[in-house]
Amino acid sequence: MSLKLICLPVQPLLERVEAELAAQTLSDTSLISEAARYVLQNGGKRIRPALLLLMSKMLGASESAAVKLSAAVEMIHAASLMHDDVLDNASLRRGKPAANVKWGNQVSVLVGDFLWCKASLLAVSEKNEAIMGAMAGAAQATVEGEILEIVKSNDFGIGVEEYLKIITLKTARLFSCACEVAAIIAGVPDGVISLAKKFGLSLGVAFQLTDDVLDYDSSIERFGKRAGTDLCEGRITLPVINTLRACGDDEKKMIKEAILSSAAPEGRLKEIVSVMKKYNALSSALDLAKEYSLKAKEELMSFKPSLERDSLISIAQYSVTRDE
Amino acid sequence: MSLKLICLPVQPLLERVEAELAAQTLSDTSLISEAARYVLQNGGKRIRPALLLLMSKMLGASESAAVKLSAAVEMIHAASLMHDDVLDNASLRRGKPAANVKWGNQVSVLVGDFLWCKASLLAVSEKNEAIMGAMAGAAQATVEGEILEIVKSNDFGIGVEEYLKIITLKTARLFSCACEVAAIIAGVPDGVISLAKKFGLSLGVAFQLTDDVLDYDSSIERFGKRAGTDLCEGRITLPVINTLRACGDDEKKMIKEAILSSAAPEGRLKEIVSVMKKYNALSSALDLAKEYSLKAKEELMSFKPSLERDSLISIAQYSVTRDE
Repeated sequence: MSLKLICLPVQPLLERVEAELAAQTLSDTSLISEAARYVLQNGGKRIRPALLLLMSKMLGASESAAVKLSAAVEMIHAASLMHDDVLDNASLRRGKPAANVKWGNQVSVLVGDFLWCKASLLAVSEKNEAIMGAMAGAAQATVEGEILEIVKSNDFGIGVEEYLKIITLKTARLFSCACEVAAIIAGVPDGVISLAKKFGLSLGVAFQLTDDVLDYDSSIERFGKRAGTDLCEGRITLPVINTLRACGDDEKKMIKEAILSSAAPEGRLKEIVSVMKKYNALSSALDLAKEYSLKAKEELMSFKPSLERDSLISIAQYSVTRDE
Repeated sequence: MSLKLICLPVQPLLERVEAELAAQTLSDTSLISEAARYVLQNGGKRIRPALLLLMSKMLGASESAAVKLSAAVEMIHAASLMHDDVLDNASLRRGKPAANVKWGNQVSVLVGDFLWCKASLLAVSEKNEAIMGAMAGAAQATVEGEILEIVKSNDFGIGVEEYLKIITLKTARLFSCACEVAAIIAGVPDGVISLAKKFGLSLGVAFQLTDDVLDYDSSIERFGKRAGTDLCEGRITLPVINTLRACGDDEKKMIKEAILSSAAPEGRLKEIVSVMKKYNALSSALDLAKEYSLKAKEELMSFKPSLERDSLISIAQYSVTRDE
């Protein structure tokens, strides 16, 4: 099922999120509005706002609070993309040049900071310290995950557990935060908030695991990002971990060399992907993603049936299929 | 009077701030602690914590809250230094290599983000939304000021008013926030909070104006930063604005060329400084700094006399003298 169809129950709210994002990125300094909007419009499936809105509607939370906080969560995400682009000199972000290519590192860092501050101010405006704490904590986890990823880049000794820790921090915690915040504004009991968090966390892990598989197994058209970026950046993701565990010494050597070389991996990518497929490294990584997706769905079973719950179940499915 | 002597009334509290900073930068990922502590220890006169602590003590606020929030304000400052180093590839920060030279841009951006998140979490921990709002607002102003400075770099049409807007945003707002937060935790009436804010704002403008004069008129030993950085980065500060208004066409051409050229200005710096002195551009910029310093002192006169008020008066004096 397409994400658009899945999100139909909150479509009008998603439009209000867009209006909120436009309002939040207004500035006397036109460079700020321009760069911030470029990054925000340049993409994004708005999966985090969709999650927050669906969870909010399912639990009966205030719409206006949900819209504001959805914008805040998306701005944290956009800020981290902008800072990430500085880091890896990404030249392509969802098919368009990254902000740092268009405006330079200076602007990417500062406009990322600007979005971050605006998100904090939105969180503050809800006058609920649990929300502020959840959002600041998720932002911190995202950053810690990104730092850990850098520390562990080119480290072939990384195991599955450590890899899962990195993707939990850098991706799943913000997914989890979107669901948590929705539950908080709905005023549900702590046990329900905790369930919402768990659902978001499992979903986020499933989502990032699938991203990491698609990085080796997708065309630029389909996924909007150039395949092989992880390889290029020295990120040892599960497909690589799985392959290195199973393959022969010559194959190991070839893969390690490709990762350590700073050259574009295009030439080597096909060869590496075929080694990965030979050892079922991609399919077994996707199997793990499916396990997390299933876990996410199971966590939803404690909630009463509703149209929104159906959508959340479908998002859990979507996280591992990415149907257009 | 030396800053150390001025801060004597809060010396034990300043030591607790150091301990708080060390605790806040603890991390499983040693790179985070290392880089964050490098930046935090690598300097800093701790003028923002000193302000917050003195104002808190003068107004009778809780010591433990003041210590925590002082650490938070200093972390926001350190984060903005780290991000600033990415921007201008600063090779020297207070006499030691900047973090981005030591660890690269990646780490500077992310560890800056980390400090920012930790500061937010500290603000959240006080469970007072006025504090969170003040801090997020000041952080946003800092970022907006830095962006505006970039937008206006190499723009010889910049006037005094616009220049003052930039330094108010990028420097004075965080000074003001330190004083505001102290007043909030002291639980004083809104009128007193407003006075504290105004004092901090005038002080911050005086401080930055003086910095901008010292950038042309100091040795690396005295000021810890290489002279001429502003020129190098194309920042049109008040000494330049004053000079361009008064000097002859040949001098104007020489200065503009030096600013627009990306080469190190060392060769030209002496010549430019002598033109500046010829037209009293440095002394009249310092005069404006002194006006703001005086305004800051006047704002303190509404407070009851105390040892801490004496210290704050001395800080206003120090901002334009920088006695060792």
